[in-house]
Amino acid sequence: MDRPEAKSTKHLRVQKVIDARGESGEDVLAVEEPLEIRLIFGQEEQQTEKSISVTMRTPGHDFELAAGFLYTEGIVQSAADIVDVRYSGPKSQLGQCNTVSVRLASEVSFQPELLERHFYTTSSCGVCGKATLEALRIRNRSALSTNGEKISSRTIELVAERLQPEQEIFHLTGGLHAAGLFDDSGKLLSLFEDVGRHNAVDKVLGDRLLKRKFPLKNCILMVSGRASFEIMQKALMGGIPVVAAVSAPSSLAVELAQSFNMTLLGFVRGNRFNIYAGAERIQ
Amino acid sequence: MDRPEAKSTKHLRVQKVIDARGESGEDVLAVEEPLEIRLIFGQEEQQTEKSISVTMRTPGHDFELAAGFLYTEGIVQSAADIVDVRYSGPKSQLGQCNTVSVRLASEVSFQPELLERHFYTTSSCGVCGKATLEALRIRNRSALSTNGEKISSRTIELVAERLQPEQEIFHLTGGLHAAGLFDDSGKLLSLFEDVGRHNAVDKVLGDRLLKRKFPLKNCILMVSGRASFEIMQKALMGGIPVVAAVSAPSSLAVELAQSFNMTLLGFVRGNRFNIYAGAERIQ
Repeated sequence: MDRPEAKSTKHLRVQKVIDARGESGEDVLAVEEPLEIRLIFGQEEQQTEKSISVTMRTPGHDFELAAGFLYTEGIVQSAADIVDVRYSGPKSQLGQCNTVSVRLASEVSFQPELLERHFYTTSSCGVCGKATLEALRIRNRSALSTNGEKISSRTIELVAERLQPEQEIFHLTGGLHAAGLFDDSGKLLSLFEDVGRHNAVDKVLGDRLLKRKFPLKNCILMVSGRASFEIMQKALMGGIPVVAAVSAPSSLAVELAQSFNMTLLGFVRGNRFNIYAGAERIQ
Repeated sequence: MDRPEAKSTKHLRVQKVIDARGESGEDVLAVEEPLEIRLIFGQEEQQTEKSISVTMRTPGHDFELAAGFLYTEGIVQSAADIVDVRYSGPKSQLGQCNTVSVRLASEVSFQPELLERHFYTTSSCGVCGKATLEALRIRNRSALSTNGEKISSRTIELVAERLQPEQEIFHLTGGLHAAGLFDDSGKLLSLFEDVGRHNAVDKVLGDRLLKRKFPLKNCILMVSGRASFEIMQKALMGGIPVVAAVSAPSSLAVELAQSFNMTLLGFVRGNRFNIYAGAERIQ
């Protein structure tokens, strides 16, 4: 897996205006560039290559992002499903590759039409939050189990405290989302940043997948912003029981957590947080 | 255009933990529900209906969101291109409709394959930021003109000051993005909130379109978060010359602004902001 140097930040001359007076200065930007994910699948004699996604991302961990995306979309179930990940296509002006090709094991069945699915609808009741949650069940995701182990509220404080100093690119640019995975003692396992908050979560899951660190039982996923439906859906796909967000959850994020027996914490700041679902996992 | 009552917020019992002690309390959540946008197009004798998008949004201004989405995707160019917007499909459990059907004027040509386009690629150089910008040119978006009129930095301060108190749902929930459109004297023209920041911008543009308030020359679009490529692309489609963001822009947002002669301001807070592109429009 040959990796060219990726540029996650870019320096720029800007005008800084303070109280209607401008002066020249320097600023550091988070890089945003498109990434195309291509899939190579099928039996060895007749393999097919197909472009399945283009997402805007911050370069730096494209293999993790691609693997995590395939995992949270339900296309791969384990590291063994992925035979090879490599850059393909020409380099961009920045000297960077923006196309990743993932080769699936020949026994993995991939149905391209699944990606064109109507994810948010079921035939029974049209489009609504309930149908969206039902669609997850149809994808064979069942509620997570509670094994009786509890996480102390001090550990939640610790996790919140540890996420922040690790956000290296954020500290340079002020413009990036972060997602960190912690174990139940509050130890950091994996942390990634991205201009897209779903990408940061995909990178975390892809990193665990490629390092064969699944399952993620008793883990805590902490995100730097809000908890949306998609963040919760990705955590559910990864079997992560506890999601903590610095900011607010949406209504559907809470409904997903309730529906799939997950724990959802919001406004996790200092020694405070709110429990929106799954209080039985918190001591 | 019959509109059922939309619920943008939802009350929930939560556990509030402070310094490891929990007590029961109430919290208000921003509602997140899927919206399906369907298009009815073609000559009167043989009209076709097609589902073109499902997006997670905060209910409340679905017609504006649908119209804005069609506009920023380049499917409609003016209010006259839209003959009718209405709710279709069953009501959800919340009593809310989550499907909007838009009927296009019979003379509007719609090519469904355009939506399946590779937006971020051009045949010349694969996938990269430059190709992404080139693809916008291919969609007939040329650089915005500079008419010599300037906006004072005091007006920028005023715009930032006025966005915040208008974010009604944010103040209740702490969990929503906002986009506001202001004229060059700092007067608020239109403001919307949404769990998705691109949706908030689409709602602003849809509102202006449905009220036939185009063009948006000399206007300022202010967003509550970061300025990404997609925010800039939507502002460009609307012909809005100045975009101001409370937080940081991405590298590609700045490149888009430079490439299409737009003004991009970031970290707009109090009496301070940074000018990332198009300084000639600011006094």
